[in-house]
Amino acid sequence: MPIHEVTTSTAARRTRLREILRERELDALLVTDLLNIRYLTGFTGSNAALIVSASDETGSEDRTVIATDGRYLVQVGEQVPDLRAEIARSCVPGLLELATSWGAGRLGFESHVVTFDQHAAWAEAAPRIELLRAPGIVEQLREVKDEGEIALLRRACAAADDALAALVERGGLRPGRTEREVARELEWLMFEKGADGISFETIVAAGANSAVPHHRPTGAVLASGDFVKLDFGAQIGGYHSDMTRTYILETAADWQRDLYDLVARAQAAGRAALNPGVPVGSVDAAARSVIEDAGYGDLFLHGLGHGVGLEIHEAPGIGKLGTGTLLGGAVVTVEPGVYFSGRGGVRIEDTLVVREQGPELLTLTSKDLAIV
Amino acid sequence: MPIHEVTTSTAARRTRLREILRERELDALLVTDLLNIRYLTGFTGSNAALIVSASDETGSEDRTVIATDGRYLVQVGEQVPDLRAEIARSCVPGLLELATSWGAGRLGFESHVVTFDQHAAWAEAAPRIELLRAPGIVEQLREVKDEGEIALLRRACAAADDALAALVERGGLRPGRTEREVARELEWLMFEKGADGISFETIVAAGANSAVPHHRPTGAVLASGDFVKLDFGAQIGGYHSDMTRTYILETAADWQRDLYDLVARAQAAGRAALNPGVPVGSVDAAARSVIEDAGYGDLFLHGLGHGVGLEIHEAPGIGKLGTGTLLGGAVVTVEPGVYFSGRGGVRIEDTLVVREQGPELLTLTSKDLAIV
Repeated sequence: MPIHEVTTSTAARRTRLREILRERELDALLVTDLLNIRYLTGFTGSNAALIVSASDETGSEDRTVIATDGRYLVQVGEQVPDLRAEIARSCVPGLLELATSWGAGRLGFESHVVTFDQHAAWAEAAPRIELLRAPGIVEQLREVKDEGEIALLRRACAAADDALAALVERGGLRPGRTEREVARELEWLMFEKGADGISFETIVAAGANSAVPHHRPTGAVLASGDFVKLDFGAQIGGYHSDMTRTYILETAADWQRDLYDLVARAQAAGRAALNPGVPVGSVDAAARSVIEDAGYGDLFLHGLGHGVGLEIHEAPGIGKLGTGTLLGGAVVTVEPGVYFSGRGGVRIEDTLVVREQGPELLTLTSKDLAIV
Repeated sequence: MPIHEVTTSTAARRTRLREILRERELDALLVTDLLNIRYLTGFTGSNAALIVSASDETGSEDRTVIATDGRYLVQVGEQVPDLRAEIARSCVPGLLELATSWGAGRLGFESHVVTFDQHAAWAEAAPRIELLRAPGIVEQLREVKDEGEIALLRRACAAADDALAALVERGGLRPGRTEREVARELEWLMFEKGADGISFETIVAAGANSAVPHHRPTGAVLASGDFVKLDFGAQIGGYHSDMTRTYILETAADWQRDLYDLVARAQAAGRAALNPGVPVGSVDAAARSVIEDAGYGDLFLHGLGHGVGLEIHEAPGIGKLGTGTLLGGAVVTVEPGVYFSGRGGVRIEDTLVVREQGPELLTLTSKDLAIV
């Protein structure tokens, strides 16, 4: 079945950005984070800078200019046909010169990613411009996904779901295999199912290793009665999926069934709490309280979840200490875990869209206890 | 055959660092780049900071302290048994407090990687410390590899060599396959041959695509008479290999043989020029002049090579505009290429150690023209 491609206008994103710039009384924003440039223009090269002027109007963006180097001459024309492109060995100086010629006095820069040395060089190169700290503005826009982004995230989640289903179906989870073998096969299957890449190094953790939240796959051999925890994701069109499932090999002990049931209940409570306008701390609390009530609060060693998109970890953070509220259109993970050190642990994780009508699951693999 | 593990003392690296700090009249260096921390301590976690005091003596490093968060409590003890470790949610503030208590007035920081916002927060938190720009000091140490690092690089190069040999032997390069299939198989084979990971996204470029220096594998199908360019590498123990070979499928045209021969001669000239004390620009020129003499200077679109180590691209850069001289113990690539746009291109790349007695090849795959 052909996949329906949703085209999202990067121009609309730049229009939203300009509203923020005007609110903050900035003449322009100098964007140097490559993911933010990709988000605002579609450009995927490895070297670029972008200046977005608050005074530009959609459709006539005379003062919104992308700069990159000669390697990307053709690519920038194809990917960013709607903006003027400057080709230069070093991207920022030319843009600063342009901004100076426009009389842009108040220029925001991404002070959360720009290095101390870069700023010093720019300040020296453009003495007539006031460089103002403007951290996280584009990341704030990125927190709410448009339907084009959600379509890519849905496909990325489906590739991961499909890969896991294929792994289980072909008997890939069985005693005698190593964690590393399982991880590589799962990654291979994600490519087979359409992934452009993996979201992060796949976690496969068997037996006692499943009690280590971020275990790196080793030569450890899967054994009957083990928990096997798989935390993995696929990338499609730059967007990341993230999911965790924990299986039991062949025979389940009572403590394993109880632990699985507890984490599954906490995960369901966390998912149910995902609504626009809700403080992120209360989402975390909804899941955490289930685990605390069972007496294992101190064994849930991390936050409940995080945003996903062009990065595997992005806003919002959903944890005990999180501030702010969930926004409609945010795409987040819900992933409680309980870890019995030296024995084993369970984590269950889905990726979901926060929506007015209730959360939309993008991860569709069953969460029923599976003994394989 | 068991692999002989070479243990390298990270303490020796810290001792060399202290010599530089004393030369620069710094009381201490605050290291926040994770690869630099790994190099200086062996710690591989995802969150850490390190302070190295110039006054410390090897063996009693009272004022050399690593900080990380609670997730890495066990790991930091195992990986860094020789240093005091502070566990904190936020790593740098505690180290700044310590430095203040020691009376460390002049504290260098890695201004080439520290963000503008981080510096501002630190300066506010530690008003009695003078934070001084100290970019690239550890990177400078990293440019010269010790034998432990070279042993890892040798293994990484061998994994890539072995994977390519297996790919060719099993007929993996044949008309009808897609670039993407070949890339995935080659990556899979690198894992089979002992890689912990890949060095970067594998480049497989067939036919006209081989004329694109950094082509991303697509669904393009390999055809008889194509150049097939493979640029790839394996990671072992954090160290990266990097190699390129260009094959011809089934039948070679005269222009392809001539082009291959030209690039091979340029590559040999570049390798022969690798000696300690030689200006990097003259190494580039040694290879480039061969291509220029053939009239194709403007089709060699990039620098000749770069250092490899904990990063895939690190010092020294070997290009037309490169400054500085090659150091004995540097590990670098030599990778000239000539690209006929729309027709095809050839690049040949090895990784080598710069040594007094002449360069040591780490990439051992034959560079004879291969028609597969």
